Amino acid sequence: MKQIGRTVPRLEARAKVTGRAEYVHNLRVPGMLTGKIFRSTVAHGRIRSIDTNAARAQDGVFAVITGDDIKKFIPDPYYGPAFHDQPILALEKVRYVGEAVAVVLADDPHIAERAVQAISADYEDLPPVFDEVEAAQPKSAIVHDVLRPAGTFADLKHLAGRRNTNVALDYQLRHGDTARGFDESDHVLEHVFKTQQVMHTPLEPIVALAEPGDGTLTIHSSCQTPSFVRMEIARLLGWPENKVTVKVPFLGGGFGAKVYVKLEALVSALALMVRRPVKIALTMEEQFYTITKHATTFRIKSGVSKNGRIVARECEVWWNGGAYADIGPRVAQKSGFTAAGPYDIDNVRIDSYEVYTNRPPAGALRGFGVPQLVWAYESHTDLLARAIGMDPLAFRRKNILADGRPQATGTIMEDAAIGKVLDRLAEKMNWDAPFDRGKNRLKRGRGLGLGFKASISPTTSGAIVNVSADGSVVLYINTIDMGQGSDTAMAQIAAEVLDIAAEAVKVVHGDTDVAPYDMGTLGSRSTFHMGNAVKLAAEDARAKLAALAADVGLPEGTNYSVSEIFKKRYGMQAGNVIGAGSYVPSYKPTDAKTGQSTNVTPFWMIGAAGAEVEVDTETGHVRVMRLVNVADCGKALNPKVARTQLSGAAIMQLGFTLYENMELDGGQVTNASFADYKIPGFRDIPIMEAELVTAAQKSGPFGAKGLGESGTFGVSPAIANAIHDAVGIRITELPIKAENVLRALRAAEGRPIGDEE
Amino acid sequence: MKQIGRTVPRLEARAKVTGRAEYVHNLRVPGMLTGKIFRSTVAHGRIRSIDTNAARAQDGVFAVITGDDIKKFIPDPYYGPAFHDQPILALEKVRYVGEAVAVVLADDPHIAERAVQAISADYEDLPPVFDEVEAAQPKSAIVHDVLRPAGTFADLKHLAGRRNTNVALDYQLRHGDTARGFDESDHVLEHVFKTQQVMHTPLEPIVALAEPGDGTLTIHSSCQTPSFVRMEIARLLGWPENKVTVKVPFLGGGFGAKVYVKLEALVSALALMVRRPVKIALTMEEQFYTITKHATTFRIKSGVSKNGRIVARECEVWWNGGAYADIGPRVAQKSGFTAAGPYDIDNVRIDSYEVYTNRPPAGALRGFGVPQLVWAYESHTDLLARAIGMDPLAFRRKNILADGRPQATGTIMEDAAIGKVLDRLAEKMNWDAPFDRGKNRLKRGRGLGLGFKASISPTTSGAIVNVSADGSVVLYINTIDMGQGSDTAMAQIAAEVLDIAAEAVKVVHGDTDVAPYDMGTLGSRSTFHMGNAVKLAAEDARAKLAALAADVGLPEGTNYSVSEIFKKRYGMQAGNVIGAGSYVPSYKPTDAKTGQSTNVTPFWMIGAAGAEVEVDTETGHVRVMRLVNVADCGKALNPKVARTQLSGAAIMQLGFTLYENMELDGGQVTNASFADYKIPGFRDIPIMEAELVTAAQKSGPFGAKGLGESGTFGVSPAIANAIHDAVGIRITELPIKAENVLRALRAAEGRPIGDEE
Repeated sequence: MKQIGRTVPRLEARAKVTGRAEYVHNLRVPGMLTGKIFRSTVAHGRIRSIDTNAARAQDGVFAVITGDDIKKFIPDPYYGPAFHDQPILALEKVRYVGEAVAVVLADDPHIAERAVQAISADYEDLPPVFDEVEAAQPKSAIVHDVLRPAGTFADLKHLAGRRNTNVALDYQLRHGDTARGFDESDHVLEHVFKTQQVMHTPLEPIVALAEPGDGTLTIHSSCQTPSFVRMEIARLLGWPENKVTVKVPFLGGGFGAKVYVKLEALVSALALMVRRPVKIALTMEEQFYTITKHATTFRIKSGVSKNGRIVARECEVWWNGGAYADIGPRVAQKSGFTAAGPYDIDNVRIDSYEVYTNRPPAGALRGFGVPQLVWAYESHTDLLARAIGMDPLAFRRKNILADGRPQATGTIMEDAAIGKVLDRLAEKMNWDAPFDRGKNRLKRGRGLGLGFKASISPTTSGAIVNVSADGSVVLYINTIDMGQGSDTAMAQIAAEVLDIAAEAVKVVHGDTDVAPYDMGTLGSRSTFHMGNAVKLAAEDARAKLAALAADVGLPEGTNYSVSEIFKKRYGMQAGNVIGAGSYVPSYKPTDAKTGQSTNVTPFWMIGAAGAEVEVDTETGHVRVMRLVNVADCGKALNPKVARTQLSGAAIMQLGFTLYENMELDGGQVTNASFADYKIPGFRDIPIMEAELVTAAQKSGPFGAKGLGESGTFGVSPAIANAIHDAVGIRITELPIKAENVLRALRAAEGRPIGDEE
Repeated sequence: MKQIGRTVPRLEARAKVTGRAEYVHNLRVPGMLTGKIFRSTVAHGRIRSIDTNAARAQDGVFAVITGDDIKKFIPDPYYGPAFHDQPILALEKVRYVGEAVAVVLADDPHIAERAVQAISADYEDLPPVFDEVEAAQPKSAIVHDVLRPAGTFADLKHLAGRRNTNVALDYQLRHGDTARGFDESDHVLEHVFKTQQVMHTPLEPIVALAEPGDGTLTIHSSCQTPSFVRMEIARLLGWPENKVTVKVPFLGGGFGAKVYVKLEALVSALALMVRRPVKIALTMEEQFYTITKHATTFRIKSGVSKNGRIVARECEVWWNGGAYADIGPRVAQKSGFTAAGPYDIDNVRIDSYEVYTNRPPAGALRGFGVPQLVWAYESHTDLLARAIGMDPLAFRRKNILADGRPQATGTIMEDAAIGKVLDRLAEKMNWDAPFDRGKNRLKRGRGLGLGFKASISPTTSGAIVNVSADGSVVLYINTIDMGQGSDTAMAQIAAEVLDIAAEAVKVVHGDTDVAPYDMGTLGSRSTFHMGNAVKLAAEDARAKLAALAADVGLPEGTNYSVSEIFKKRYGMQAGNVIGAGSYVPSYKPTDAKTGQSTNVTPFWMIGAAGAEVEVDTETGHVRVMRLVNVADCGKALNPKVARTQLSGAAIMQLGFTLYENMELDGGQVTNASFADYKIPGFRDIPIMEAELVTAAQKSGPFGAKGLGESGTFGVSPAIANAIHDAVGIRITELPIKAENVLRALRAAEGRPIGDEE
């Protein structure tokens, strides 16, 4: 293979470094109004009144729009991928501090911003609830009066019409008999782990611009899911899909913040109401109020035999979904079924609850819930190994799920190189060699973390390949290049099939009027799903070229160029060939009795991390010295890009492990800026190693599989396990701040910090 | 059929009347420079020097670019569809008054315009030649030192490298033996007919905007042939085609003025040289210097038997191509082979010469040369009928080419309803009824004209049909809707196949990055070629939907909606289906011996006109009282649009018959504005009737064929024949001005006007 496995420089690199790459933030269109949002100051309240008179009176203000105005235009203005629970602007109630309540439209964004300050709202306070476990209790304050599943997913239908509950999904998985398993175990351990609410921090905040046409609407958006947005906006408006166009240029990062509808419903409604193009661009602060990652509480209980086999495991996970469900119920379910980890356990019981609270909404964030789970089960797994006095690597090796064995859902494992990944990690970590334990106040330790993840299923991707008469190629896809290099990878696939250089392929991405349907650029699904679609489309084009060639007297085996075929066909350079491909993996529908599919994923992502840390026992400061990430990539289409993905994901998770935390005070985020919310800087990055394990994914394009999230899996528990290894304390809550480490150290020494005061 | 044959209101009508329809003239992009052109003031001259200093020194002028500057950037800056003879800006020589010599670029068009006035050029005068017959003589002044055919067309290759000639094509057709035919004839008549140079007058003048990207270029253009422009610009730049994108919104008329490269090479070169977007929009005046319709001289000689059969015909046609060939050689050839008319003549000899002169270039204009030919052969045919004392209708009926008979090229006639068209015209004209001959000074007469035309062949069109999960449809084509209603017709075809309403189809047209290759929107080829491609694409989508339906347990015959198929397939509304279609008609390549294909066209266009006129014998003024147009449309996809096309073409030809004429003085067009160049106004329009003859074109989509030019064919000779019928004089030169009629009347009376003075 000439194109696959080659580190092709990114096709868009030049455009980015020369500033030519297009972003929606730079887009202005004639007659465009800018919207600025007035947001709720209370966490839970009934709207008594909104006073927009002073704002309307300001010079240069075109309009001020509230939820009631929207409702006159769209009678049922609720949207969401899983639940139709989120109003375009708050209606009747506000459910979190920062919720969008009104919008000022003006030609000048500064005028709009100033007018927002002149709006006031009066709320009747309602009791709020912030904690996911508390919110799941029967007596909790209730965020939504009634549950409204979207009807998109069959397994949410049973929730329709439920009242007096914040539980937006109560996913259950039962495999074997955990009660009997615990009875048969030699040791039974139970722990509770927690993670914090964090934010995606794409450096390009969310932005959207809607342009009304003649019975049509064009939306330019920073969006990972153009096909979904088109469908959802068409649904809200009651229009056929073909009247709505969604265009997406490059994104400055997405990480799940830009999936499904974010600002698109709002700008669409506004643009159609005022008959002018409308653009809204969030500030970084506003992004904290828009979409976040679930805080979680995970109670995990395992029984092990003295020879080191995990006999039974119970998992109870509460996902703090915030005020609107977004895709949270799917996080609770799709990640929930892997809560017991990549281990071969006969008896598994999982309960996974998506819970509404009065926090900013939580949705998908790189890993789709899996990093929260791995944090818990891999911290717990280390404690199990310690409990029976076994090396944590050996303990994991003994329990890992091998190909051919059933995962807890009943899905038979296939092409999941769990053992190989673990072996490679051990090798890179020199696990069997002596390790410098540090000296004086600086103690060193090392730890591992291993995780796996299913791909979202069943989903579909389509692609078109257009071969011009000179043999040059344009590829049309709705996979969005948001920094992960998808344009380049897809060009490599098309080029390999067509036997041309990847650099010669032009990729047109992100236009629902142009490229076929794609479920979305999310969940590490694109390399596999879109990769297969591109391969099929290129093969279709190749077959059509071959047929054309044979037709004009250039039989197979002849040495001819593409332009010769067309010249022979048309007597001149003319014509082209269109190849189309559409891919959907096989999927077994949910079993009516168990409520579970036994073919949950088209491929498994496997990622492991190894960390070497140094703990300052006098300050609690943890320095990660070395961070090794290993993942099963199937076959790396572009090794450098693949390794960058792995390291990028690990650095992101490093931030969630050590620094990032949305601090809330009465529901108000108190650190919604990069001045106060620390993400890893260059000086925080340890020595990083990114290792790809090649283990062909037979169903993948040229053996490839998704990789964009695998680097997040093991990082947090590897660091916590390394800290435990260094200083004997166990941290159970993220982020691992120096203060918490010091408190734990001092508590372990019998002199808790609080006692001194 | 529910969609075909229905007068669907035009899909774009609302957008046009509400001002939302997009035109390139309205397009501005950030950083855009506007170019204004400095033009030659001499008809033929060697460039000694161009002084741009004063222009460059003006405030706000960004750059002044000459042909030499272009040549540094593009070493061989010559373009053209048939010959690579036209420099992007004049090089070494200028060849006509109005040729583009230099361009001023500025942010503000007014600054650019003012700076153009400050440019001066010094030329060494060369002898010019303006007349097509004179220019074809051996001793003529020579416009191009050497002929440079593009290599696109095999039958132009023999001209490569020829020197000392202005003949850019010397097409010959020999069928039977005309010398013997004349010997066997009872009467032999010979006449010479002439037509004038005219202009297309699209109300939207030609405009183009080029935006440089990162190794890519996007051209927004008022263009009928986006695929060709992409190919030609890529060739000039030495780039692969996929790096060039050509986008075309709606056009405000085209009529052949906007085929092939017009401003696109210029704006592309400028934009890449100055690294800024560059737009150039012609004024109406400048359009007269850009592309026109061939003036012609046609010597026609026929032999007839006394019983009314045409035994032999010789045609010698000189086409005044102006300074650059554009598509002129194809006009000379593709129309040339029909110069003997739609008659069954055993002995035919045609010589057709495309001739360079020092006039503004001539190219394609609605009818592609055929109206000039019909003008001559139908005037001549009337004179033949008169010579043998036969009714002109009866004479034509006796000689028309019937299906199954060979046309002069050897092509066997098929689906050409010549007889039916003539019959319908006779019926509409009430030919056999008594006719009011007028009274006093106002004399009335009536006349007929009948023509036929081949479609350009072989050419190809491609289409893509995208069916969304809700069943709504987007159709992607590079056929340009320039007023002829192609979007609507193509939507009807797709809708008929997919069993939905045409109004539910969204048409995306004019984007080479999006829609497949299409040869161009010209020569009335789109209904047939693109129509077939759209039908194939829709059938492909329909077959894929049926396969998908069967796959999910909805076998054929079941009553299901499209959205049900997708919901069953994906468990939710998701996915889509892509259908692709590509059409090329069968074609017999040119025979090496005769230099002629014997399968010259995929379908024949047949058009006839009948005119009733009133001549004021004291002033020579001709009033057309009634104009009946009849055409073979195969099957009318949209009857109202088809009839509008027929009448529109007839009105255009009415202007060329009675009013329009580019007046030249030493090569300078002296009436290059609508103040001086009269086109028909509302008050000039006679009673018009447009009659469609349905006569299935078996190879056409649902039996349809092209119709956009058929209304031009018979108008001019019908009027001249009617004048002859009214007052007994024969006009042999267009336009038929009152002055010329009066001169002819007075000459016939034996008191020529000149003698009075």
